[in-house]
Amino acid sequence: MASGKELCEGVEWRIRVVDGSSEVLVPPTGPARKVWLRTKGLISGLGMKVRMFLKQAWDMGANDPRKVIHCIKVGLALTIVSLVYFMRPLYDGVGGNAMWAIMTVVVVFEPTVGATLYKCLNRVCATCLAGFLAVGVHWIASQSGDRFEPFVVGASIFILASIATFSRFIPSVKSMFDYGAMIFILTFSIVAISGYRVDKLFDLAHQRISTIIIGTSLCIIVIMLVCPIWSGQELHSLTVRNMDKLSDSLDGWFRSRCVRQYFTNSNGEDDQKLQGYKCVLSSKASEESMANFARWEPSHGRFNFRHPWKQYLKIGASMRSCAYCIEALNSCINSENQAAESIKKHLSTSCLKVSSSSSSAIKELAESVKKMNKSPTIDLLVEEMNSALEELHNDLKSLSHLLNPSTTAENQISATGLVPFMEVIPVVTLASILIEISVRIEALVGSVEELVKESEMKDKIVAKEEKPEGTMKALQRV
Amino acid sequence: MASGKELCEGVEWRIRVVDGSSEVLVPPTGPARKVWLRTKGLISGLGMKVRMFLKQAWDMGANDPRKVIHCIKVGLALTIVSLVYFMRPLYDGVGGNAMWAIMTVVVVFEPTVGATLYKCLNRVCATCLAGFLAVGVHWIASQSGDRFEPFVVGASIFILASIATFSRFIPSVKSMFDYGAMIFILTFSIVAISGYRVDKLFDLAHQRISTIIIGTSLCIIVIMLVCPIWSGQELHSLTVRNMDKLSDSLDGWFRSRCVRQYFTNSNGEDDQKLQGYKCVLSSKASEESMANFARWEPSHGRFNFRHPWKQYLKIGASMRSCAYCIEALNSCINSENQAAESIKKHLSTSCLKVSSSSSSAIKELAESVKKMNKSPTIDLLVEEMNSALEELHNDLKSLSHLLNPSTTAENQISATGLVPFMEVIPVVTLASILIEISVRIEALVGSVEELVKESEMKDKIVAKEEKPEGTMKALQRV
Repeated sequence: MASGKELCEGVEWRIRVVDGSSEVLVPPTGPARKVWLRTKGLISGLGMKVRMFLKQAWDMGANDPRKVIHCIKVGLALTIVSLVYFMRPLYDGVGGNAMWAIMTVVVVFEPTVGATLYKCLNRVCATCLAGFLAVGVHWIASQSGDRFEPFVVGASIFILASIATFSRFIPSVKSMFDYGAMIFILTFSIVAISGYRVDKLFDLAHQRISTIIIGTSLCIIVIMLVCPIWSGQELHSLTVRNMDKLSDSLDGWFRSRCVRQYFTNSNGEDDQKLQGYKCVLSSKASEESMANFARWEPSHGRFNFRHPWKQYLKIGASMRSCAYCIEALNSCINSENQAAESIKKHLSTSCLKVSSSSSSAIKELAESVKKMNKSPTIDLLVEEMNSALEELHNDLKSLSHLLNPSTTAENQISATGLVPFMEVIPVVTLASILIEISVRIEALVGSVEELVKESEMKDKIVAKEEKPEGTMKALQRV
Repeated sequence: MASGKELCEGVEWRIRVVDGSSEVLVPPTGPARKVWLRTKGLISGLGMKVRMFLKQAWDMGANDPRKVIHCIKVGLALTIVSLVYFMRPLYDGVGGNAMWAIMTVVVVFEPTVGATLYKCLNRVCATCLAGFLAVGVHWIASQSGDRFEPFVVGASIFILASIATFSRFIPSVKSMFDYGAMIFILTFSIVAISGYRVDKLFDLAHQRISTIIIGTSLCIIVIMLVCPIWSGQELHSLTVRNMDKLSDSLDGWFRSRCVRQYFTNSNGEDDQKLQGYKCVLSSKASEESMANFARWEPSHGRFNFRHPWKQYLKIGASMRSCAYCIEALNSCINSENQAAESIKKHLSTSCLKVSSSSSSAIKELAESVKKMNKSPTIDLLVEEMNSALEELHNDLKSLSHLLNPSTTAENQISATGLVPFMEVIPVVTLASILIEISVRIEALVGSVEELVKESEMKDKIVAKEEKPEGTMKALQRV
């Protein structure tokens, strides 16, 4: 049978030309058509990509409206700072240097209050320090005569920029003053060098500082008054959320996966919930940066200034150590060496008890962190977990009754009901990892209790010293 | 016996005053002395801290001289760009806006070539794009009359700044153009607003772009010619180093810890080497940022442009999944339930074989990544590992002979030489985690082979297309 294409190629379109002969109309199958088809493909592919990209962006905004609010806040702050340009007295006041205020707003405005405050304070302090130093260096340079002035200025820039850059590598400086060191180099270079050309050096330094102060104050006001997002609160919620996830994956696993699939060979469903522990594994970096920024925040909500943020990092580390074990458990459960049915049955009840009791202990810890007070039931839950462990221990002990001491006579299984040793191994491994997880949960209990204790101590100290909480709360409610 | 302080307080110093009476000289034990002592303590404490800080900084510089070189490079680049200020024709050429060149150098200069190129290209492209857009918006605004001009400019700033800020949250934009989005907002705001005051808008845009090009080209020249540090090379070395660490901790553990301590109850020594796997656990963030920057780098050394950097992330993930298991192994080895001696002896040989063969497989993989070619011996090593696994399997199987089927008669152990089931569990867990580790090592072998294959393919494509390697190598050797 001839294909459609062949048929189509068999037909010719002819037109009669004026001189009586006829010419063949060739369909555009040549390079032009190819280019057209390729271009069409490219355009539709691009359109597809753009649509996908927009959908992704839309979903992101819909899932977390605070991101959209942040964008509006940036637009708002920039529009307000533009007023400096439009209002003649303000513009003249800063000698046409209003550009610095805009620049400050753009580079300083971060999604959280802590990050913005960190950048604002670093920028203001570093600018002042560098400004004074640069004026000093400029004075020394001007005393050394016209010939040596460029050399003195150049050498000072080289030395100070190198030292400040080096300081950015030192961990303690990096965590607190990284941005400040950069701004220091920037301001020092600009002011020291401008001194060579601009005679009104003091004016330049003064204008730069005042525009930066205008910019930073505007940022601080907008970030704190319009739907503020606090790093500390975020860290707190992340910790609680991660604990819940850990608890869910520990519990859900055993309920859906082990009991149904592992212990009775059926399929689990809510895989996504079970994979929650992976979030715990990968949240180290964000925890650290949040704890870093939270230190800069004034007291807000239930958190005082100097709330023990570092303790959250310890809790995070404890959670991760649990999550490592859950990862190992995962492979254990997915491993191909499936255990014998009788052994699974023998251990399923106690394994389930251990997992559900440790899961509820973590859940209670999450609640305790959430409310920031010592849970009244946690000791009871830990005790329950320990008694479940004891039970698992006993079940493991009695497992030897089910074992077939002979390795060769594997066909005896069904006859005697005894199981070869190899088929016990996966379950035993699972049980001992479960035991290890509960040991690690006890460490987690310890670090949560420490956090609660430290935070209560800080609360008392602050209550004695002053009451800044009230003002911040009032500010927040505006 | 009276204490020294009491004795001292018993003695009084008296001076005879002119009128004949005598006055007691009170030793300065009052608040003044306290303040003095406290101040002294504070100063010495501060001195101590400063000394510690300087020592830390010195050690850091001594351990990684490249950091010092980077600092000198920053100083150098800044001093060179200052020449623009000192040279009259250059200064006039950019209309007194030489400040932008300095600023560009300060904010764009990063330790690695990739990071610097990323920032340079982002800065230049974003500035050009924003400059053109701002000129367009300014033209529209000027057409709409004096009254509406501020509103048009303000609205455009609000909308574009919000959109650009939002785009920074989208992962694909964030990884490639985060800095560019910020610079876009910055330039657009400054140029659009300056248009309201500065009549020479085109000049402003042109000057800003040309100073930025001066700054970025200088940065690129300095970063590439003076001891360049390539992100790609760093990622490559980090991967090799991490593999070596993983191999060391797997091997060292079993040699020193298990064999001596766990299997024969003595103490391990080189703990630091054994903890190497923790570096693997915590290097995800740095791997990701390096892979991100490496994409911007031209071909250098043995790496072509478009080297499969993403594959390194997959290898990193595989390594981490091994490291999780080593973490679980750690707890297993440190666990208090020590196993029975006879069981340990029974399994120690095969466990050692598995661990040492998997360790040498990882070492060989590291070598393979280092040389960027498929190792001729890796298949052999994997086979060896598998045969060791087989042996361990058999040893586990035969373990049941040593088991005491009765749980209650624990005092029979010494008499019969049989071991209660509970004392087998730790060793069995250890063995099965070890088995899991070797399964994960096979996955690691797969991802390394994929990297080698992809890189060879890219090499061939590049060799066909052109030879940019040669130019870059020549540039590097300058």
